[in-house]
Amino acid sequence: MNTIDSKISVFALGGVNEIGKNMYVIQSDDDIVVIDCGSKFPDESLLGIDLIIQDVSYLKENIEKIRGLIITHGHEDHIGGIPYFLKQLKVPVYATNLTLGLIEIKLKEHGLLRETKLLMIDSESKLRLGTINATFFRTSHSIPDCLGIAFHTPQGTIVHTGDFKFDLTPVDNQSPDIHKMAELGQNGVLLLLSESTNAERPGSTPSEQLVGDHIIEAFRRAPRKIFISTFASNVHRIQQIVKAAIITNRKIALLGRSMVNVVSVAIERGYLEIPEGMIIDASEVQSMNPEKVVIICTGSQGEPMAALSRLASSNFRQVEVLPDDTVILAAGPIPGNERSISRIIDNLYQLGARVIYGSGSITGMHVSGHACQEELKLMLTLMKPKYFIPIHGEYRMLRHHSLLAESVGVKKENIFIINNGDVVDIENEEANFTRSVDSGNVFVDGLGIGDVGNIILRDRKLLSEDGMLVIVTSISKSNNQIITGPDTISRGFVYGPDAEDIINQVNESVRSTINQMQDKNKNQRVLKQNIKKSVEHLLYKRTKRRPMILPIMIDV
Amino acid sequence: MNTIDSKISVFALGGVNEIGKNMYVIQSDDDIVVIDCGSKFPDESLLGIDLIIQDVSYLKENIEKIRGLIITHGHEDHIGGIPYFLKQLKVPVYATNLTLGLIEIKLKEHGLLRETKLLMIDSESKLRLGTINATFFRTSHSIPDCLGIAFHTPQGTIVHTGDFKFDLTPVDNQSPDIHKMAELGQNGVLLLLSESTNAERPGSTPSEQLVGDHIIEAFRRAPRKIFISTFASNVHRIQQIVKAAIITNRKIALLGRSMVNVVSVAIERGYLEIPEGMIIDASEVQSMNPEKVVIICTGSQGEPMAALSRLASSNFRQVEVLPDDTVILAAGPIPGNERSISRIIDNLYQLGARVIYGSGSITGMHVSGHACQEELKLMLTLMKPKYFIPIHGEYRMLRHHSLLAESVGVKKENIFIINNGDVVDIENEEANFTRSVDSGNVFVDGLGIGDVGNIILRDRKLLSEDGMLVIVTSISKSNNQIITGPDTISRGFVYGPDAEDIINQVNESVRSTINQMQDKNKNQRVLKQNIKKSVEHLLYKRTKRRPMILPIMIDV
Repeated sequence: MNTIDSKISVFALGGVNEIGKNMYVIQSDDDIVVIDCGSKFPDESLLGIDLIIQDVSYLKENIEKIRGLIITHGHEDHIGGIPYFLKQLKVPVYATNLTLGLIEIKLKEHGLLRETKLLMIDSESKLRLGTINATFFRTSHSIPDCLGIAFHTPQGTIVHTGDFKFDLTPVDNQSPDIHKMAELGQNGVLLLLSESTNAERPGSTPSEQLVGDHIIEAFRRAPRKIFISTFASNVHRIQQIVKAAIITNRKIALLGRSMVNVVSVAIERGYLEIPEGMIIDASEVQSMNPEKVVIICTGSQGEPMAALSRLASSNFRQVEVLPDDTVILAAGPIPGNERSISRIIDNLYQLGARVIYGSGSITGMHVSGHACQEELKLMLTLMKPKYFIPIHGEYRMLRHHSLLAESVGVKKENIFIINNGDVVDIENEEANFTRSVDSGNVFVDGLGIGDVGNIILRDRKLLSEDGMLVIVTSISKSNNQIITGPDTISRGFVYGPDAEDIINQVNESVRSTINQMQDKNKNQRVLKQNIKKSVEHLLYKRTKRRPMILPIMIDV
Repeated sequence: MNTIDSKISVFALGGVNEIGKNMYVIQSDDDIVVIDCGSKFPDESLLGIDLIIQDVSYLKENIEKIRGLIITHGHEDHIGGIPYFLKQLKVPVYATNLTLGLIEIKLKEHGLLRETKLLMIDSESKLRLGTINATFFRTSHSIPDCLGIAFHTPQGTIVHTGDFKFDLTPVDNQSPDIHKMAELGQNGVLLLLSESTNAERPGSTPSEQLVGDHIIEAFRRAPRKIFISTFASNVHRIQQIVKAAIITNRKIALLGRSMVNVVSVAIERGYLEIPEGMIIDASEVQSMNPEKVVIICTGSQGEPMAALSRLASSNFRQVEVLPDDTVILAAGPIPGNERSISRIIDNLYQLGARVIYGSGSITGMHVSGHACQEELKLMLTLMKPKYFIPIHGEYRMLRHHSLLAESVGVKKENIFIINNGDVVDIENEEANFTRSVDSGNVFVDGLGIGDVGNIILRDRKLLSEDGMLVIVTSISKSNNQIITGPDTISRGFVYGPDAEDIINQVNESVRSTINQMQDKNKNQRVLKQNIKKSVEHLLYKRTKRRPMILPIMIDV
């Protein structure tokens, strides 16, 4: 097996520079293993797009070589793309117990559960994937049951950390497998791929336990109902909320579909313990003594349709936020969500609630799930890799992580900051970084996967800024005279008293453009262009707006 | 003058709860004084809107009572609305020297400079505004020449702080007038309006001087060109950059229109000292020794058209960011701008630059211009007001500021958190909070002021999400048969190979809807509704998208 001529190739189809999200590929000659399959929510510039996933055309071309998709943990940016992936590539999926539970929810929604081969692994598993053998080590993160992976290939060992921090006092007592990591390093790691989310942050991330203490304290002081919002997948934190509820003698109601889903999966699979009879239905909350209830809800990122946002705008039938209720935001804001979260906090204050949130004071209601600089250095030191690829982060984070790697002794020339599709080839222990495979973002919009591209997005942008005008004129085929119209319909442009006058002017201008062209060869394309130009000019002069203009000519 | 029956009324037409931005009104019987006239940039939900200003209909109805518009300082959120205000209300404008300079730039752009009565004041001015006398006190902030205002009215003294912090070691040696503030408090303050921006933050804001030290240090370490981006209006910081450039023997180039504008106003009016010959033209940068030049540029908030963003995407003709250049972001992110700023930092790193920015480590390249909790308590303690209105902040900040006021002895029932338009009336030293005046947001879009409302915004939102379809059919008046069409044009919805098939299906469905209605009374409105409904259904089933559908029927 240890053929000296074999080659190992590593690349990302998403997840470096945060374009798309989290998919790494390891290929050893004719064996391909795919790691993670995340999705990403679009920013505001991608109008109407629901989700961003990866371009997997390379994998489709090499489907017979794929030995499996291994998932490191159950976060959206690692599992969100799986249903779309499986629609294109039927390959077995390997994941831990909890992760599989979360994947199954998704597959059910997409009607893919029955046809998919799901295989449960744990940190003790050993997989033979063609010439690649995979072993695993436990890591700690903001969701239970996370794995790092060691791929033992003919060329050497490649380690992919997954997302991690070193929480040495974990809520579930499942400490990270530091001894296994040390052993891997001792035996020689050819290449390390390690996550970079917090590579800009000095120090170490505090233990999740700290949050638990603050939650108990806040529960003790709460005079009436408590609402606490966190990521549904942060099962450790939910366990600590349960503990605080037990201590303060409160029942628990769950609000929000994903909270209900994840909690039931976590209970079923033994990752969350909630004493019998402690969970009540949301409909029971209003009739209960407010001192005896805590509501765990979704929406900590300000998502407009999630529970917290609806509570803040008094838009929930069953449960209300009332004066002196306590609302705890037990989650940090993901960059970009700050404004929506602030609006929710404002609304909660207006309802008279006591709001406990992160900004401006250390409330201790959140710790990151990712390793800070000292922990990243610890991982690098444990693994002592020859080659290093910082993964999972925006470019500046990868840069910072590279500097950390240098600082603990990885040679500068052995560190590769890769873009999506860039391939690192390793042959005879020598790495090359010269070629690339197809990669990129694929947009999901409704049922469409990849059909929305730049032209549609550009039109949506134009339409969103100044709206549009449709100008319809019917013209006689026999004598080129106007029969009906021009009639102008506008949307998103002008409205009310001013509009009529502007529309009349537009129609007048179109009429005169058509009449001016009467004598010439009335080429429809040229006529439309002229109408567009003159109307654009007229409207910009009058309004300084540039709506999309669609002239429609009908020959009858 | 001290008529016991007179009444004083205070309200905001923008600036509390951050709806619109910064305009406060004080009315003493028949005398009205307006304080500040800011504008606000819209968030991403207000598609196509350029600017948000205030509804001033109350002021228009009472124009004969307005004695003047007093501006506390020259920031956009205090002066940005002035041109729109003056187009509706010709009143004299009072401001300090530098503030007037910045206002004049705006008025020139709007062709309003000549017709406007601009009156220069300073901290020693005394204004008689009908029965209201105004005196002033100097404050420190992130722009020079800021004022707090004391309005001496028949009912008592009302103090408006403007924006402030207590910088006791100010860059320009213009310390805040603490003794005047103390005297005001000693003589009795009936009502204090104090700004709340940092009311969530404990402690005190550090002095601007600290930033200067860090800038010098960073300049000393920079191996090649230096780019430093900050708010153009932060003249103190620019002065410190100049100092660092002198010490490190570098010339200065300015990039960005507002940077050039503000720096020349500040130099002209004596607020900024730059030694003769130190400023070079941007076109000279490329030919200079990179160790001998620093470029001060706009765009620290990630604005896509500003200098820094264009530099990061190598989109500047005259100046380039090259490997080992240093780029300093000497400004904090305004909430909501984090993502665009991150993208710029990523791009700069990709160009090989050394980037110094705030996130993740204390680089000390920015301090706030606003008072933190200890300073807010100091202001409240100096003023000892009977009544208190926290101003300038979102609701949660006003709440925090109220608690601070309580903590230093203001009675809870004497604190008013007001919304735009809520009026606090004070008569015989008794405050009432019962009525309100017209207020609200006015949107500026191109030349339109206030003409874009909910209907237009809703249509823009619909158009932005899934685009639109126009379906045109001409029908014979005589026999109700289709003459031409249906023809469907779509924008922002589908494109490419799939589109044709979908459009054919749409046309087919429209044809059958029209034919089904042949026999009945062919009411156009009903027909259009039926077309809309069936096409909506068809498209949602096929694509899960909901484009706007515009059926157009032409009778010929």
